Amino acid sequence: MGKEGIRYAAKVDLDKDAGTLPYLHNRWHPDIPNYGTIKNNETVKIECVDWTGGQIGNNDSADDMRDVDLTRIHYLTGPFEIETAEPGDLLLVDIQDVQPLEYAPWGFTGVFAKENGGGFLDEIYPKPAKAIWDFEGIHCSTRHIPGVKFAGLIHPGILGCAPSAEVLETWNTREAELISACSHMDRDVAKPPEPKNVHVGTGEAAIKEKVGKEGARTIPGRPEHGGNCDIKNLSRGSKVYLPVHVEGAKFSVGDLHFSQGDGEISFCGAIEMAGVITIKFTVIKNGVADMGLKSPIYIPGPVEPQFGPGRYIYFEGFSVDENGKQHYLDATVAYRQTCLRVIEYLRRYGYSDYQIYLLLSCAPVQGHIAGIVDIPNACTTLGVPIDIFDFDISPGAPVQKRDMGSCAYASS
Amino acid sequence: MGKEGIRYAAKVDLDKDAGTLPYLHNRWHPDIPNYGTIKNNETVKIECVDWTGGQIGNNDSADDMRDVDLTRIHYLTGPFEIETAEPGDLLLVDIQDVQPLEYAPWGFTGVFAKENGGGFLDEIYPKPAKAIWDFEGIHCSTRHIPGVKFAGLIHPGILGCAPSAEVLETWNTREAELISACSHMDRDVAKPPEPKNVHVGTGEAAIKEKVGKEGARTIPGRPEHGGNCDIKNLSRGSKVYLPVHVEGAKFSVGDLHFSQGDGEISFCGAIEMAGVITIKFTVIKNGVADMGLKSPIYIPGPVEPQFGPGRYIYFEGFSVDENGKQHYLDATVAYRQTCLRVIEYLRRYGYSDYQIYLLLSCAPVQGHIAGIVDIPNACTTLGVPIDIFDFDISPGAPVQKRDMGSCAYASS
Amino acid sequence: MGKEGIRYAAKVDLDKDAGTLPYLHNRWHPDIPNYGTIKNNETVKIECVDWTGGQIGNNDSADDMRDVDLTRIHYLTGPFEIETAEPGDLLLVDIQDVQPLEYAPWGFTGVFAKENGGGFLDEIYPKPAKAIWDFEGIHCSTRHIPGVKFAGLIHPGILGCAPSAEVLETWNTREAELISACSHMDRDVAKPPEPKNVHVGTGEAAIKEKVGKEGARTIPGRPEHGGNCDIKNLSRGSKVYLPVHVEGAKFSVGDLHFSQGDGEISFCGAIEMAGVITIKFTVIKNGVADMGLKSPIYIPGPVEPQFGPGRYIYFEGFSVDENGKQHYLDATVAYRQTCLRVIEYLRRYGYSDYQIYLLLSCAPVQGHIAGIVDIPNACTTLGVPIDIFDFDISPGAPVQKRDMGSCAYASS
Amino acid sequence: MGKEGIRYAAKVDLDKDAGTLPYLHNRWHPDIPNYGTIKNNETVKIECVDWTGGQIGNNDSADDMRDVDLTRIHYLTGPFEIETAEPGDLLLVDIQDVQPLEYAPWGFTGVFAKENGGGFLDEIYPKPAKAIWDFEGIHCSTRHIPGVKFAGLIHPGILGCAPSAEVLETWNTREAELISACSHMDRDVAKPPEPKNVHVGTGEAAIKEKVGKEGARTIPGRPEHGGNCDIKNLSRGSKVYLPVHVEGAKFSVGDLHFSQGDGEISFCGAIEMAGVITIKFTVIKNGVADMGLKSPIYIPGPVEPQFGPGRYIYFEGFSVDENGKQHYLDATVAYRQTCLRVIEYLRRYGYSDYQIYLLLSCAPVQGHIAGIVDIPNACTTLGVPIDIFDFDISPGAPVQKRDMGSCAYASS
Repeated sequence: MGKEGIRYAAKVDLDKDAGTLPYLHNRWHPDIPNYGTIKNNETVKIECVDWTGGQIGNNDSADDMRDVDLTRIHYLTGPFEIETAEPGDLLLVDIQDVQPLEYAPWGFTGVFAKENGGGFLDEIYPKPAKAIWDFEGIHCSTRHIPGVKFAGLIHPGILGCAPSAEVLETWNTREAELISACSHMDRDVAKPPEPKNVHVGTGEAAIKEKVGKEGARTIPGRPEHGGNCDIKNLSRGSKVYLPVHVEGAKFSVGDLHFSQGDGEISFCGAIEMAGVITIKFTVIKNGVADMGLKSPIYIPGPVEPQFGPGRYIYFEGFSVDENGKQHYLDATVAYRQTCLRVIEYLRRYGYSDYQIYLLLSCAPVQGHIAGIVDIPNACTTLGVPIDIFDFDISPGAPVQKRDMGSCAYASS
Repeated sequence: MGKEGIRYAAKVDLDKDAGTLPYLHNRWHPDIPNYGTIKNNETVKIECVDWTGGQIGNNDSADDMRDVDLTRIHYLTGPFEIETAEPGDLLLVDIQDVQPLEYAPWGFTGVFAKENGGGFLDEIYPKPAKAIWDFEGIHCSTRHIPGVKFAGLIHPGILGCAPSAEVLETWNTREAELISACSHMDRDVAKPPEPKNVHVGTGEAAIKEKVGKEGARTIPGRPEHGGNCDIKNLSRGSKVYLPVHVEGAKFSVGDLHFSQGDGEISFCGAIEMAGVITIKFTVIKNGVADMGLKSPIYIPGPVEPQFGPGRYIYFEGFSVDENGKQHYLDATVAYRQTCLRVIEYLRRYGYSDYQIYLLLSCAPVQGHIAGIVDIPNACTTLGVPIDIFDFDISPGAPVQKRDMGSCAYASS
Repeated sequence: MGKEGIRYAAKVDLDKDAGTLPYLHNRWHPDIPNYGTIKNNETVKIECVDWTGGQIGNNDSADDMRDVDLTRIHYLTGPFEIETAEPGDLLLVDIQDVQPLEYAPWGFTGVFAKENGGGFLDEIYPKPAKAIWDFEGIHCSTRHIPGVKFAGLIHPGILGCAPSAEVLETWNTREAELISACSHMDRDVAKPPEPKNVHVGTGEAAIKEKVGKEGARTIPGRPEHGGNCDIKNLSRGSKVYLPVHVEGAKFSVGDLHFSQGDGEISFCGAIEMAGVITIKFTVIKNGVADMGLKSPIYIPGPVEPQFGPGRYIYFEGFSVDENGKQHYLDATVAYRQTCLRVIEYLRRYGYSDYQIYLLLSCAPVQGHIAGIVDIPNACTTLGVPIDIFDFDISPGAPVQKRDMGSCAYASS
Repeated sequence: MGKEGIRYAAKVDLDKDAGTLPYLHNRWHPDIPNYGTIKNNETVKIECVDWTGGQIGNNDSADDMRDVDLTRIHYLTGPFEIETAEPGDLLLVDIQDVQPLEYAPWGFTGVFAKENGGGFLDEIYPKPAKAIWDFEGIHCSTRHIPGVKFAGLIHPGILGCAPSAEVLETWNTREAELISACSHMDRDVAKPPEPKNVHVGTGEAAIKEKVGKEGARTIPGRPEHGGNCDIKNLSRGSKVYLPVHVEGAKFSVGDLHFSQGDGEISFCGAIEMAGVITIKFTVIKNGVADMGLKSPIYIPGPVEPQFGPGRYIYFEGFSVDENGKQHYLDATVAYRQTCLRVIEYLRRYGYSDYQIYLLLSCAPVQGHIAGIVDIPNACTTLGVPIDIFDFDISPGAPVQKRDMGSCAYASS
């Protein structure tokens, strides 16, 4: 009856090595032991570290971004056993609230080095870079990209239930086939299981070894369970319906974002932070079959920041790449071109390309698939809210080049 | 001073063969003669036929959809000379209004046969199908998909200025290369110039022959000028900034839509109609360079139909195809999966797959690029507004299979 | 099936004297003969003259405003018999569309002279004034108040069914009591029946005489039937539920507005225009008792112009009048003060008080009752959208006095 | 740079008697000593008790509501000295966040007895009543009004700077005149200064005595400083501009609301709670004159809960009272009628009138002044969001009377 505060299912300690903490893990595997139990219909608070487990500092150098160890990410909180949940059920995750930790009101957006992680535009922008964001209630701003301030649409980047052994096997097989098929490409197209730096919460050495060999990496979202979907609208008041694959669901959550743009294009692109999420869990028996779901669905919450439709500039991009080559209905190519169009436009105000690249990753930009059938061109659009800038970026307004300082770069 | 009505730059006659009308054309080419002249800063009304030029009827058979002649489309109104416009300028197109023709308050959505046009899901849904929509002021409904009614976000599918000879050459070269590179595929990946049924307005035989050989087809949008962008939000009150490539701009417009979903997935997927668009034209001298634009941008209008964010169901899709094959950050594959997830969900209410396929093409669904960096999976989302249905499709609501009748099919 | 246009139940002729036209009337009375019949569930278009029946011209003088004859207003189109409607039913009026007449794309906002009509602020602003608005699709602007442009939320000011003889008697009695009780005030507090210039459509002399004696004036909205509610949000896509008091409902509509602010403070305050409204009529049998309705209700349409909540400046006003006198929870006094606060603020930019008074009457300003229980002060708020101005009126922005020209005044 | 949490300017202790706490006070007076100092441009957190200082319990009886001691309210936190603020300046209060106390996630809505406080409808509903609300993240629900859940638009009911001696004198004079003029009414029309239970924070006995004699009660908002404006939209991200009347501004805040409806009709009508508000303070030198402000203005924040305009039912009310008496343009009478119309409508579902009265006070209902010039009727509207109910209250939906339990009443 609301007379007391909500129970914490986990509290984090930011001063300890994330890789030693019993309530964190960094792979998907059914054998990672539960950290605790949550009742059906119970509401709990769950604290999360930032996705790198503290590798990135509140400073003005991107050396940490350059040197990030991707075998350690993402540190998720859990897994939690949800009472009564069984395979075939749906777990209704009612996100009642998400907040930064009160004592750490800041976050970061990064560009990884092309040779260590990369990002959506790494062929063009291969260098590491970083911006630190300060939170002011619902708003944020950064000393590394002056002239910008916006309300965060705060959300978890990752949530999901553990895969069953069969589902895990499917993942590993199909991603290995891709890696094999793409061996000629000079880039990672997927990340296979990796024993190095694997962390399995309270799991013993034998489990750790097994998870190291088999555990799915947390980087991609996957259709069977959701995971790292990076959906910017999954914010306060949203409801997600997650398929359950194992007894007790084994739910995990992490990678909290203060804000993100559609696509999260710089990879470490959201405003990454440590924080606390309040969730009510409800088990829907046999929900997967009853609703015909092969992947999660969600209903966004009622409090999205409102920019009138007339307060966006929309950029258009097509599946003709920067070398003039025509691609066939390729929305990925089109969206990359759309991003480049924004960079070309915003450059006029004095921003560096890296500043804009960072900004597009984390500001509440709208990425739409406009047309995907008009052969041979896919057309995507990207809407930039005019009101996040403290000067007027409208096409008709006068343009003045300003001193926009610099984002953080790595030392050379 | 508004004491009289606005000038019509063109009025259409729906009873005549579109291929004979002096104010229509169906290819992009700089040599198609202007139909008339519009002053800088002038506002005019321009009437348009539907994109097929009347090939589709208001009836209950999809035979016309099956037999559509794609060499004839799209019939655009124009080109119009815009006074003072020169290459390098931007043409600001202020869409003051779009309406159906008062005497023809209906439109159509179609699925083409896989072997004649196809669509985004034609591997799975190869048959032709059709729905006829009746307009009731700002709303529409159809006897072919019962239980659905929504306000249209009415817009032009195609608008653009004529390419210069150089731009046209670029288009033809790069699309020919794609066709050549994809010759092993058993489908059209692009449409080369096509003399058959070419129409050049008032152009003489020599021009007709030239345009037949060189004229770019109207199907794809293209980065240099926009064209068939099929952007569902380009509605009443929107402003588009179009690059000018030739003297006088040679602006054309057509393919009016009463409504469209992001992606327009069934290809003939919007609610296609004849109608009238009111545009104010303004020339922005040297705008292309001043704004750093390589493609059009636009600012959406202030009157988009409002569904609260809590009134959508969002479906998630990933770049793992229906055969379980993993694709690398392929947003096109992901969006196709997202569409299939919706079909699986809505089937429960008694709709046929083709009814849902048609509905997803034309209803105001929101297609977003959620994550495009989490290797190997791109994640896209598709939001379906709950309030367009006259029963409750929420995940928690009781499900009842209804008699949903049928969309129109072709005779066999 | 939408193959033809919608039937016109009435078309207006702006060149004729409104007081002679068979489809118009200007009083509420059950004996005014029907102009025609509309089927239950039928959709029709109904054209309307402006509320003054053409007394106001598109020019730069407010002489016509000064000399307006208020015995002639409002000219309503109808009444229409709605088949099957009986007393006790509700008439569901589905407003599918409202548009200005295509050949008359302009409207007017006026301030009446204090001694002939007056307005909400006539103690302070007693002079007649006028602004002429030009329509550009969904937007409007005026040469009389430079720097302002906005999308109209187009709606009918008046719609309702005829009163029964009993209801009419109630109105006349209760308003006569008010007039009698306020005889000491030096202003009209209500308008009694008035034979002069009464117009009853096709009604014979005997009816005219009777209506002249008994007919209710059209100026106030009234709880029993709605009437002149001047609700700015009753726009395209809205549904109104109107009580039926007589056989056949005898529905009338008029006083179309291109836009209005909450309160319509200058009395002739909306952007008044001639136009056409498309309505679907549905009779709900016994609806008054079933829904427990004593007054109309409505559901607003889905396409209201969107200004983000952060794009308004809200002014506060309290029930302490301009002489410093404290009133007891008087929302009317509070709202007048709120209006004055806006005038004081906007003066800084060079507007005259009369220009702002006109603007507040017709722009889409939001008038809210904030607190009405905190004795002795009622608090009301008025939100002015920032984005209707082409310069920045935000509190933090630099203020520059401009040459704002003049609204139209009367000759002296 | 955001590396640490935000400073608390005051923390509350809910276990102590509010009337003894040094950081609280319950009158407006310039001599109440400052509790501390806040720098210009500083951001602080300020905790607040509920407005009654803990007189109301989380239980199922309204005895506490009946017995509430109104000489003790409202307990405000402060006053705080804002460095550099002087009379004539504006204090920009940037509301960065408002939250309930983490350990007290509940609030209350009450109806006072007519003879002890009363409310907007107390002639009709004179009995005390109460509902306890439980908070679930951004949403709330209550065991006392089943079937309802909504997102709070969380805000402070009261904020303002201390009056100067001159301003205070103005208040006391003008309110005394009202009390004197209304001595024939059998109700309190205003509350004069009251020595009983006066609390002045750390102030000595002499100050306490002076404030008891002269201090303005906190119940009304007042034009000169704002105060108890009860503006439901003054939520997270809003900015308020407050006139400064004394050196150091002496800012106070309290009466936090989880949600409120326009009008807050039951007087104790918002969802009252203890909580914490995060504010950034900025002094704008000479702002009162520069902006021409006689009363505060505000800009609402960007995250208002979104109900589409088509998701409200709007009720209309007119200035004809429940006895059929006609009032002259009286928006207060009209709004009372509008409230009664909602009660009549919602009764059909099994709610008691008191349950609806409570709900209208605290749910995010929209109260608008529609028309205020159409003599003799003012017309107000009240929009009830359809989506706060877990069943369909649309006019067309089937109506079923449910067992809606009961709100809390007082023992007899």
